[in-house]
Amino acid sequence: MAYSIAIERTSAPKTKPEVSRIGFGTIFTDHMFMLDYETGKGWHSPRVVPYQPITLDPAAKVFHYGQTVFEGLKAFKTADGAISLFRPDMNFRRLNRSNDRLSIPPLDEELALAGLKTLIGVDADWIPAEEGTSLYIRPFIIATQPTLGVAPSRNYLFMIILSPVGAYYAEGINPVKIHVESDYVRAVPGGVGNAKTAGNYAAGLKAQEEAPQGYSQVLWLDGVHRKYIEEVGSMNMFFKINGKVVTPALNGSILEGITRDSMIRLLTHWGVPVEQRQISIDEIAEAHRDGTLEEAFGTGTAAVISPVGELHWQGEKLVIGGGKTGELSARLYDTLTGIQRGTEPDPFGWMVRL
Amino acid sequence: MAYSIAIERTSAPKTKPEVSRIGFGTIFTDHMFMLDYETGKGWHSPRVVPYQPITLDPAAKVFHYGQTVFEGLKAFKTADGAISLFRPDMNFRRLNRSNDRLSIPPLDEELALAGLKTLIGVDADWIPAEEGTSLYIRPFIIATQPTLGVAPSRNYLFMIILSPVGAYYAEGINPVKIHVESDYVRAVPGGVGNAKTAGNYAAGLKAQEEAPQGYSQVLWLDGVHRKYIEEVGSMNMFFKINGKVVTPALNGSILEGITRDSMIRLLTHWGVPVEQRQISIDEIAEAHRDGTLEEAFGTGTAAVISPVGELHWQGEKLVIGGGKTGELSARLYDTLTGIQRGTEPDPFGWMVRL
Ligand SMILES: Cc1ncc(COP(=O)(O)O)c(C=O)c1O
Ligand SMILES: Cc1ncc(COP(=O)(O)O)c(C=O)c1O
Repeated sequence: MAYSIAIERTSAPKTKPEVSRIGFGTIFTDHMFMLDYETGKGWHSPRVVPYQPITLDPAAKVFHYGQTVFEGLKAFKTADGAISLFRPDMNFRRLNRSNDRLSIPPLDEELALAGLKTLIGVDADWIPAEEGTSLYIRPFIIATQPTLGVAPSRNYLFMIILSPVGAYYAEGINPVKIHVESDYVRAVPGGVGNAKTAGNYAAGLKAQEEAPQGYSQVLWLDGVHRKYIEEVGSMNMFFKINGKVVTPALNGSILEGITRDSMIRLLTHWGVPVEQRQISIDEIAEAHRDGTLEEAFGTGTAAVISPVGELHWQGEKLVIGGGKTGELSARLYDTLTGIQRGTEPDPFGWMVRL
Repeated sequence: MAYSIAIERTSAPKTKPEVSRIGFGTIFTDHMFMLDYETGKGWHSPRVVPYQPITLDPAAKVFHYGQTVFEGLKAFKTADGAISLFRPDMNFRRLNRSNDRLSIPPLDEELALAGLKTLIGVDADWIPAEEGTSLYIRPFIIATQPTLGVAPSRNYLFMIILSPVGAYYAEGINPVKIHVESDYVRAVPGGVGNAKTAGNYAAGLKAQEEAPQGYSQVLWLDGVHRKYIEEVGSMNMFFKINGKVVTPALNGSILEGITRDSMIRLLTHWGVPVEQRQISIDEIAEAHRDGTLEEAFGTGTAAVISPVGELHWQGEKLVIGGGKTGELSARLYDTLTGIQRGTEPDPFGWMVRL
């Protein structure tokens, strides 16, 4: 199906930054995609316009009741100069699952993808080509009806903005140190933990801030028993114990990470067993004690794979793999980034070329 | 302390609505209050300006990570034509507690109150005088730094908007029917349930939408045991069982309602015993069965007191007090609204005159 997407080009293109200074999420491209929703009319008026501030009534529901969802995915300049997206269909499908949880009307996933492709076509020059860089894509929906009172909005705005990025963590692919949180809780079954919605992230800021120095990220435990491993800020967790890979099962309170899914597929493809199940922090501490905790790593679009060199749990420091990047973590990182840059075969057809 | 608050008056005042049609939260006055925050500079530039849309970068953190808090309070035109606020100090104190939980820098509560008074002075003509009406006041803070990446914002905007209102529920003071939620969960200890932040409300929309017909509100149970009573959408709950009043204790996952506090003080003042403790839904069902569940009501700024005529729990309908407003609920409602309108003595000094 062909969609008619209006394009208004900027008359004042910005200067592109030096790649060495792009960081993460601070620089945006010249254009953005917009799509409006109105009850009775549906989603309408898809358009690419110059990147610019948006104007909202101060009573817009997003400010008061947090009715909003988002996604995060990446586009790459491949080795042969083409542009490709990593599993974008998965992100728009997840966006619709988040929409459902937040009582936001579903989006036409194909229109969203068509909008994204059009936008990237217009801002193609902004995609960095250097190793470790990419174009981070942030689709999001906000409730705009200017009415106080807790009820779903009648109006929404869907947008996509683009940011050329380098490494998400200052550490890059170097191992990070993570504090296991025992006071604060991120999500609980029956809540919105498996939706990609703003409130989940706001809830985590305080724990991050209070984590002991040197631990920039926190590992969440479940909110009911306070002992099962959930996930990290914006990463799913994997552990290699005694040759086997384990990762928390999708239990309704963690995000269904697309990188997580990709890792499970790669590992299975390689013949490495992966278990998706409940994992208690005690099991991890015990595996550490008896020397069978071989590797730990987080997975997420922004960080790709982030080896965990140390877990801090109730005053104890569990150093993992001598604080170095494990072999399997490195292999997964190399393979995934290779697929994304087109230097490795793509056995699952994950890359979508523009 | 005197603050210097700039005032810019509108040159195009709006037509004021007929009181019979004001509803709740759809009409806003001619002006609003604004105050900016910047790391290193602090809160600055307090000002009253014409009510108008605000302009934000699409990357503003509030849209993505939900770093935002709000309050809700009311101003009244009293019987003698004066204007007074109900316990505004409590709201700004709670706002700062919410700020703390959401990693937002604290606000000068006196400046906020001075800003509110200045704003109300400018829009004094907007306060309706009819019985059952008031001026609803919505202070809120949003994170405005235009950077992706989960971390506290370096910039914030504090605003106050005003809306002349009538009854919050279509039912008015008539009893509402409430569905006891058994699938979805609003909050859990360690989370943000006791902060007044947007994400808590977004999380509840789906349950409200899926509640059986005729039940516009849901009563939340705790997220750990799924059996202790928490609160309703935007009200704290009270039950009268066998002559005693009980209300859930402040456990970290419910909001510390200011109306709740006021009811407890009034009841204690009258010599009616009030227990703040865990209350299971089974206890309520049992009290209903043995005929000792005399009254149930919700309390909140918007709804004041809302008698509950029926609870719907696992297919069973627990009709309370014959579905009619109970004697104690009515007395509390009459006393509180009397204090607010200045027709009843104000033994606790709750009303703040402008
Ligand atoms: C809470 C949370 N968990 C996990 C992830 C990883 O998901 P994905 O691999 O799809 O980026 C993210 C980031 O998107 C996240 O925000
Ligand atoms: C979740 C929640 N509970 C309870 C209340 C009642 O609090 P208050 O009496 O301060 O309005 C509110 C409304 O403010 C609320 O949003």
